Amino acid sequence: MADWLTALDRRAELRAKAGLTRRLHPRGADDVVVDLAGNDYLGLATHPEVVAAAGKALSEYGLGATGSRLVRGSTYAHHDLEGTLAGWLGTERALVFSSGYLANVGAVRALVRPRTLLISDAHNHASLIDGCRVSGVETVVTPHADVDAVAAALAGAPGRPGLVVTESIFSVDGDLAPLARLHAVARQHGAVLLVDDAHGLGVTGPAGAGAVAAAGLAGEPDVVVTATLSKALGGAGGVVAGPAGYVRHLVETARTFIYDTALPPAVAAGVHAAVELVRAGDDLRAELAERADLAAGRLRGAGLDVSVPDAAVVSVTAPTPEAATAWAAACRDRGVAVGCFRPPSTPDSRSRLRLTIGAGVSRADFERALEVIVECAP
Amino acid sequence: MADWLTALDRRAELRAKAGLTRRLHPRGADDVVVDLAGNDYLGLATHPEVVAAAGKALSEYGLGATGSRLVRGSTYAHHDLEGTLAGWLGTERALVFSSGYLANVGAVRALVRPRTLLISDAHNHASLIDGCRVSGVETVVTPHADVDAVAAALAGAPGRPGLVVTESIFSVDGDLAPLARLHAVARQHGAVLLVDDAHGLGVTGPAGAGAVAAAGLAGEPDVVVTATLSKALGGAGGVVAGPAGYVRHLVETARTFIYDTALPPAVAAGVHAAVELVRAGDDLRAELAERADLAAGRLRGAGLDVSVPDAAVVSVTAPTPEAATAWAAACRDRGVAVGCFRPPSTPDSRSRLRLTIGAGVSRADFERALEVIVECAP
Repeated sequence: MADWLTALDRRAELRAKAGLTRRLHPRGADDVVVDLAGNDYLGLATHPEVVAAAGKALSEYGLGATGSRLVRGSTYAHHDLEGTLAGWLGTERALVFSSGYLANVGAVRALVRPRTLLISDAHNHASLIDGCRVSGVETVVTPHADVDAVAAALAGAPGRPGLVVTESIFSVDGDLAPLARLHAVARQHGAVLLVDDAHGLGVTGPAGAGAVAAAGLAGEPDVVVTATLSKALGGAGGVVAGPAGYVRHLVETARTFIYDTALPPAVAAGVHAAVELVRAGDDLRAELAERADLAAGRLRGAGLDVSVPDAAVVSVTAPTPEAATAWAAACRDRGVAVGCFRPPSTPDSRSRLRLTIGAGVSRADFERALEVIVECAP
Repeated sequence: MADWLTALDRRAELRAKAGLTRRLHPRGADDVVVDLAGNDYLGLATHPEVVAAAGKALSEYGLGATGSRLVRGSTYAHHDLEGTLAGWLGTERALVFSSGYLANVGAVRALVRPRTLLISDAHNHASLIDGCRVSGVETVVTPHADVDAVAAALAGAPGRPGLVVTESIFSVDGDLAPLARLHAVARQHGAVLLVDDAHGLGVTGPAGAGAVAAAGLAGEPDVVVTATLSKALGGAGGVVAGPAGYVRHLVETARTFIYDTALPPAVAAGVHAAVELVRAGDDLRAELAERADLAAGRLRGAGLDVSVPDAAVVSVTAPTPEAATAWAAACRDRGVAVGCFRPPSTPDSRSRLRLTIGAGVSRADFERALEVIVECAP
């Protein structure tokens, strides 16, 4: 009867032997660590205007949305946020989902017809991969950032609808996809380009409108943008933005939109306040870019293998999963939180520390954190 | 280039012709409708203690969780809620996801091995269906609530791991699955039973612990419970509860848990306050049960085709999708919100009004709402 639990225990033991155990470590509100692990890039999760806007909507609407968006879950907090997001991103319309994961699954599936060829970058996020999988159509996984491979896949399926799926700033290594070239290839073949701008939104682009806007692709009729509202925007939820006809199609058919309780109105209102702060945050973005370069330079100077950051994610290679875990734990013991990424959360079976540069950290703490990372290196 | 948008427009026109257009209707905080459509069964979304607990955590932690649960997203608000949920549900451990949809997808997939036979009730929710689909293993869809069909499917796959997936209170018609008999059959064949208790939790069972507890199955080693925190608990997010080894497996492997930003701490804290209120809410549950019977009786007495409610969901047949839409709109014009369910959101291609009985509605308003529904009937 409990055979299945014995089998799960055995798999847990195998993970433990490979240094791949994962544990939850709750933090308190009084946690004073220097945070180079979270995705609150601009420090807005705790910004007084964000907290005040969320608090106001919380008292007005209550906690939950009480239903799916098409039943009772749509409030003016959602509606107003969607209008602002569309204007900011330069798309005809935007639609808020309760998580970035569900936004990606819904966005991909809604673009697929039975004969569609899906082309997915090898480093894509789990939510995009699940979107491809659940779509049930042929999917070609192309080598990372390989535009020629995308072109070849599209050329190999003449007359079939194509959908090219990529992140903008890849979440593990922080590198930027060749968006303009991907778009040119997609357009040449009449395909649609879907870009998950989760790590670009708020961090890059004009008024922080993200990597798609920075590439000059905002509002193109063959481009769909997805993003999370939980990183630079400091909240929770996801968004899909694109042509009005496509967003209407999502409203009417996307399972992860229709059959899901709406984002709490207070979260939508808080994110709305964050958008306004992000748009005015060119100084914060300049600081982030400078810090990312500084971090990469300093760690590389110490002999570490470091990615070239295109936004605010810096990846540092660790020799083994165990070494990555020990390194991150040593940093944590000295008051610095860093991301520890090990298989299967990395696309190439290498382990890494992942640093996310946040404007909410003081300059002195940031520089001290870099010292700590170097001193704790294996 | 915009061929794909033309194709989407054509599909939208077909939906319009079939009466299946869906539109978002945002509500304001001052919306004074009598709500028989939302899932806030006990009226807790706006309960002062829930709002206060969420507001306190909002000021302490800020808005977003700033990362995934395994990176920076786990707070004591999540940790404490999980402990309380496990105790309430009578399971060894509970794990909070950012939505009920993601909880279901993660819970199903984590129970599947390559040779697993999945057995899924024909009326199951979209999130369970997607969980089956993304698992990539053989799935048998059994006729609704048909225990013999489940037994036959299991008997037909001797030696293979089995997983039986069902809702407790089905979301469209509000009927209760034969949980004890399903469990007996699952156990006989060494299979695991997964029950989505979204519409049972808080509404039925001892101290509102749900339909699984009511069936005497709480804590069984071959039972996994999922639920949403967005219905009777008035918040957002989902939970998976079961044996500790299984929950550890989720923490270490479930993609929809690992690669997703955590539920906002304020939502976790508000839901935690709601759990305490739900546990003490036997009087509210008695009122709900009585109202559900009253609604079914009164509508049936008016000649309508009404389900027999096992909890707080009452389904009323509409002759056509257009009639359902017009009926719901007429009720709305008279200040009563009802759910309008049409294909493909119904498992049998019939359209319905779906009424959800809420304790947050005054008795007088509730009775008046029943009159309105009868008077607006096609």
